[in-house]
Amino acid sequence: MIYFDSDYMEGAHPEVMEALMKTNLEHTVGYGNDHYTKNAKDAIRKACNAPEALVQFLIGGTQTNATVIDALLRRHEGVLAAETAHINVHESGAIEHSGHKILTLKAYDGKVCVDEVDKYIEDFYRDETYEHMVAPGMLYITQPTEYGTLYSLNELEQLSSVCHKHNIPLYMDGARLGYALASPAADFTLADIARLCDVFYIGGTKCGLLFGEAVVAPNPQTLPHFFPLVKQHGALCAKGRIQGVQFLTLFSAPKDNAAKSTTAENATATETTLYKHICNHAIELAQRIRNAFGECGYKIAIDSPTNQQFFVLPNELVDKLRANGVSFEDWGPRGEEETTVRFVCSWATTDEDVNALIELVHKL
Amino acid sequence: MIYFDSDYMEGAHPEVMEALMKTNLEHTVGYGNDHYTKNAKDAIRKACNAPEALVQFLIGGTQTNATVIDALLRRHEGVLAAETAHINVHESGAIEHSGHKILTLKAYDGKVCVDEVDKYIEDFYRDETYEHMVAPGMLYITQPTEYGTLYSLNELEQLSSVCHKHNIPLYMDGARLGYALASPAADFTLADIARLCDVFYIGGTKCGLLFGEAVVAPNPQTLPHFFPLVKQHGALCAKGRIQGVQFLTLFSAPKDNAAKSTTAENATATETTLYKHICNHAIELAQRIRNAFGECGYKIAIDSPTNQQFFVLPNELVDKLRANGVSFEDWGPRGEEETTVRFVCSWATTDEDVNALIELVHKL
Amino acid sequence: MIYFDSDYMEGAHPEVMEALMKTNLEHTVGYGNDHYTKNAKDAIRKACNAPEALVQFLIGGTQTNATVIDALLRRHEGVLAAETAHINVHESGAIEHSGHKILTLKAYDGKVCVDEVDKYIEDFYRDETYEHMVAPGMLYITQPTEYGTLYSLNELEQLSSVCHKHNIPLYMDGARLGYALASPAADFTLADIARLCDVFYIGGTKCGLLFGEAVVAPNPQTLPHFFPLVKQHGALCAKGRIQGVQFLTLFSAPKDNAAKSTTAENATATETTLYKHICNHAIELAQRIRNAFGECGYKIAIDSPTNQQFFVLPNELVDKLRANGVSFEDWGPRGEEETTVRFVCSWATTDEDVNALIELVHKL
Amino acid sequence: MIYFDSDYMEGAHPEVMEALMKTNLEHTVGYGNDHYTKNAKDAIRKACNAPEALVQFLIGGTQTNATVIDALLRRHEGVLAAETAHINVHESGAIEHSGHKILTLKAYDGKVCVDEVDKYIEDFYRDETYEHMVAPGMLYITQPTEYGTLYSLNELEQLSSVCHKHNIPLYMDGARLGYALASPAADFTLADIARLCDVFYIGGTKCGLLFGEAVVAPNPQTLPHFFPLVKQHGALCAKGRIQGVQFLTLFSAPKDNAAKSTTAENATATETTLYKHICNHAIELAQRIRNAFGECGYKIAIDSPTNQQFFVLPNELVDKLRANGVSFEDWGPRGEEETTVRFVCSWATTDEDVNALIELVHKL
Repeated sequence: MIYFDSDYMEGAHPEVMEALMKTNLEHTVGYGNDHYTKNAKDAIRKACNAPEALVQFLIGGTQTNATVIDALLRRHEGVLAAETAHINVHESGAIEHSGHKILTLKAYDGKVCVDEVDKYIEDFYRDETYEHMVAPGMLYITQPTEYGTLYSLNELEQLSSVCHKHNIPLYMDGARLGYALASPAADFTLADIARLCDVFYIGGTKCGLLFGEAVVAPNPQTLPHFFPLVKQHGALCAKGRIQGVQFLTLFSAPKDNAAKSTTAENATATETTLYKHICNHAIELAQRIRNAFGECGYKIAIDSPTNQQFFVLPNELVDKLRANGVSFEDWGPRGEEETTVRFVCSWATTDEDVNALIELVHKL
Repeated sequence: MIYFDSDYMEGAHPEVMEALMKTNLEHTVGYGNDHYTKNAKDAIRKACNAPEALVQFLIGGTQTNATVIDALLRRHEGVLAAETAHINVHESGAIEHSGHKILTLKAYDGKVCVDEVDKYIEDFYRDETYEHMVAPGMLYITQPTEYGTLYSLNELEQLSSVCHKHNIPLYMDGARLGYALASPAADFTLADIARLCDVFYIGGTKCGLLFGEAVVAPNPQTLPHFFPLVKQHGALCAKGRIQGVQFLTLFSAPKDNAAKSTTAENATATETTLYKHICNHAIELAQRIRNAFGECGYKIAIDSPTNQQFFVLPNELVDKLRANGVSFEDWGPRGEEETTVRFVCSWATTDEDVNALIELVHKL
Repeated sequence: MIYFDSDYMEGAHPEVMEALMKTNLEHTVGYGNDHYTKNAKDAIRKACNAPEALVQFLIGGTQTNATVIDALLRRHEGVLAAETAHINVHESGAIEHSGHKILTLKAYDGKVCVDEVDKYIEDFYRDETYEHMVAPGMLYITQPTEYGTLYSLNELEQLSSVCHKHNIPLYMDGARLGYALASPAADFTLADIARLCDVFYIGGTKCGLLFGEAVVAPNPQTLPHFFPLVKQHGALCAKGRIQGVQFLTLFSAPKDNAAKSTTAENATATETTLYKHICNHAIELAQRIRNAFGECGYKIAIDSPTNQQFFVLPNELVDKLRANGVSFEDWGPRGEEETTVRFVCSWATTDEDVNALIELVHKL
Repeated sequence: MIYFDSDYMEGAHPEVMEALMKTNLEHTVGYGNDHYTKNAKDAIRKACNAPEALVQFLIGGTQTNATVIDALLRRHEGVLAAETAHINVHESGAIEHSGHKILTLKAYDGKVCVDEVDKYIEDFYRDETYEHMVAPGMLYITQPTEYGTLYSLNELEQLSSVCHKHNIPLYMDGARLGYALASPAADFTLADIARLCDVFYIGGTKCGLLFGEAVVAPNPQTLPHFFPLVKQHGALCAKGRIQGVQFLTLFSAPKDNAAKSTTAENATATETTLYKHICNHAIELAQRIRNAFGECGYKIAIDSPTNQQFFVLPNELVDKLRANGVSFEDWGPRGEEETTVRFVCSWATTDEDVNALIELVHKL
């Protein structure tokens, strides 16, 4: 069997596991007050070019979104988000459980339109009865989106401008942020994101770690009293150093020499990290898959430059691929003649598996 | 330095780490639908003699308490608990964040008194204005308590009876349950707990795992729709198998031969598990520490038969121990002449460190 | 000035005020345990042909919706509602404040489509990941809707069937229910509503009272422990008899003889009440306004058979009417050439004012 | 029958009812934007000597407490209050429903001790793990307390100082504030309260109105975005002017000439209002009752200088009084030989009823 179902099917990247093993019996204080966590935070601050940033490790994405949104909103406020946003669809009502309404905007392949954000807020305050409605108190975006698409640097700058014009924070859900940064279509860096977003998180669960998400607020005043809120939301690990060790490994240079040299070629001024290395790997494979389906004339469902690829395939091909041991998900209900499917690559996807898939696509 | 600060200072038991390493690159489905998780649940059901039990893995203690309590209570109800209960003191208001009041009872070395539970509920419904007050909707206890003390089997049976007489569930926070079961003072088994509690959790974070808590509801009807609630509370791991692998290892026989034979001697009808083995180890060491201080004439602050030991020591000794490289926590503010301190053992505490400590206690 | 702005511009119907005056200095027990409240509940049970119904008086609409929805939903569930529903738009996030998501359906002049309700629920449970989403736990409808439109008896029967097929309750927001019942288009009675809805409320604030909404659950098991929830939501009046006296008057025969005879002509088997009488009055006037605008060739914006009427008028006419002392609201932003406006009648609207308006419409 | 059960057994003071009748058919805009409400707010600002104050009318006490506390606290904070506080005992968990913990202090006849408030906060921040606990974010007091007792001006000044030293707001629940101000023991004015409290409310329900509580924040910045929060909490009346008319009457000079002259004698620099007049009346009667029981040698249970009086009476007397038509409440469970009882006077209590009671006390 070869697997393209999702980017959370395996454990952690071997270098991460090695670091956990190596430090396993050390004694450290709890709740993230250890030196691994401190060093990991510093490494992230450096990678973000945000030396003053508050960095806090949480455990999973839904929890992180619920905690950050709860921290950023006042009680009479809601969060603007695309109608397809993860928080609106797949978090079992975690945002509303904390008391906040999600104010939905039309989604364009998972993205919100900057003009519509502006118009929503303008219209809101123009309405005389606005105090009877939920005030737009922040903007939530995903990068890449749930559909693999990206906001360009220009779009991010505009979203940031609109938010700050209206005095609300911009929050980016970066569950798969590494796959955005590694995309050939990316014209932004982590430092750009730190410059433009008020808060964002660097997802670890889908990018090489067992679990863990790093919330970053370049200006720490944006998230006052965040620590007790993290505890209150059940998002604080007693053994905080487990996230520290993992993130420190992720934001260090990869040990694998081949990796270093390969990545070095593409490297810009900033240092190569394991994070970049493994996300680059996933993107390269995803693009190869995309090209293979494209070359064979199959429909690209969504124009995704990241690690999730969506195709509209004839049901016959879908069935044959599965019969040949390829595992992947339908994206929506099965159609009568053809079905939209998703193929996902990650740090754990191998060249061999992708080669085998491509061969099958050409053959079947 | 030798450390007795807490039971969450290290990573996971080496056998647990080994299992994680061994399975690291396998592909499994997410959210706990994998076979490791299924097998781990079965192992727990077996250990609890509760073949129909709902078992669900969560991540940490505060989160588990908040989620279970939210699941068990109706909106007009609160949770009865000792005033010293972890949920009342050290969870940053997580229970109230979910909308529930904690109804406090007097604590006796961390324990509630069964007669006072009964009286609280009787008095409540005798008050004509009770609908203006928060109804006692469940009872929360910790085993062992935050003070290392234990409820005996008889006390548990009485608490269970009182709860069921009043038709409310009994919930046990078992963050350190393994250390209760391993205590020489324990006259109950995991099966007794499963028989007497409506819901309880088997703590992994403090008993050998990187993280993870196993919620058990012997009658699954007690926790309907628990899965989406876990997700809503941000307590669901995408890579659920990480908890599965860990708990499966914890509830399997230990690999270490010495361990097997040592434990086998004490073994009763039920099988030896790594869980029992490592908790026994911690208890043995804790009792040795206790005896050492006792023999030297120091005051035992709380009569604890579990892995946390509390002593009232002269400040001079406290300072000397620390000067000699022993790390441990003050329990409350430093006194003028003597101070209450806590020594904690865990699966990770070594014989060598305990020997060194005992030598110092005798010498200093 | 003549006013058609809304149906909450005045105090209470004179007969209601008279009843409050007459009983003002009597001593009664608090919180709705008085005999006026008991009698008012009985009068409502009788009017609804629901002898076992739980009837509880709350204060205002937003509060009533928040309390009932909180009582009906489990924590992992949300409430299905039209995207234009009052709870979704104009309640400042009161539903989300209680932790519940509003699951929106397309609105057709304020109404939901029965097939879309069915499809939403069918699709939901067909999705394999449904436990990661908010379960549809009830259906909220307004009668009449925010746009003055009505569900017919047949539509109500279908909505009730779909809800019960899926085992979720149907809840009707009846803030203006009296104006629905009094509509010439109404083919349903209060007894039909009690037969088809699991919970509904009879709005008093907009139908003749100072304030007060009567929640009715024909089967009281639908709302267990409702009283403490009402208190918890801040919706319980210390002087509960004030609502009792008001609702008792509203559901008694009108004292005014003319009223009695007029209404008697239209009366069916059930008795005439002040409630019917004053709502009939409002509807008659609203229909006269509608006819006047229609006769003069102005566009009817929404085909409303109730007390709110919506027209698309040339801005010139809008301005002239206002210059001539007619007060009414724009419904949405002012257009370039014409604007949608709303005229509302209530028990307090006078024949004289409607005559004056009609004359102006014909003249201007 | 003569009634001393509570201060919410009747409707509104006749002058309040008269004002409601007189304005009943006027047309005003909703939600408190009418001129009656504006004028009532101005009258209250003047009475409080707080010209910039935010004044907002809510409906009932539980709701007001929940809304104000929700507005004042950040999410990680709780509210300090006496263990006997109304919010802790008799509000069905409304505060926790909004997500906040009540941090209880020992109560001394309903009052908190200023030193203990200080110590609680000092100890809290001295604890190294304070971020795992709920931060004291405000102080809640009642004036008079649930036991009829008063904080003196000096005590209020000290409480205010301690709160401001620790940078938390002081909030006073003034459900019966008028009866505090009218007490012969009161050495403070409404202006003092406005000077010392960050937020307080002037209770109308128990002091002459049908319903209504006036929240006052002398510095309006203390309660930003309060209006949508009031709406969200279901505490906003569509017909806001009903509270406006009532409070305007309460804070105007009484119409009754006798009242004017009587009160005038006691009047200080500030004007006489109906509020003062009717509360003075209640206090005078309550003191007469107290004196009568005292003179006859019965035990005073709590030394209350306000409208609630508590006595420990022989059961025989309790029964005889009731047999003679006197209605009053037991305060706690009936004792074996004697029982604590409560007698309450209000604006509605008559001289005749008090005379009759006193005669009975002397005779029986």
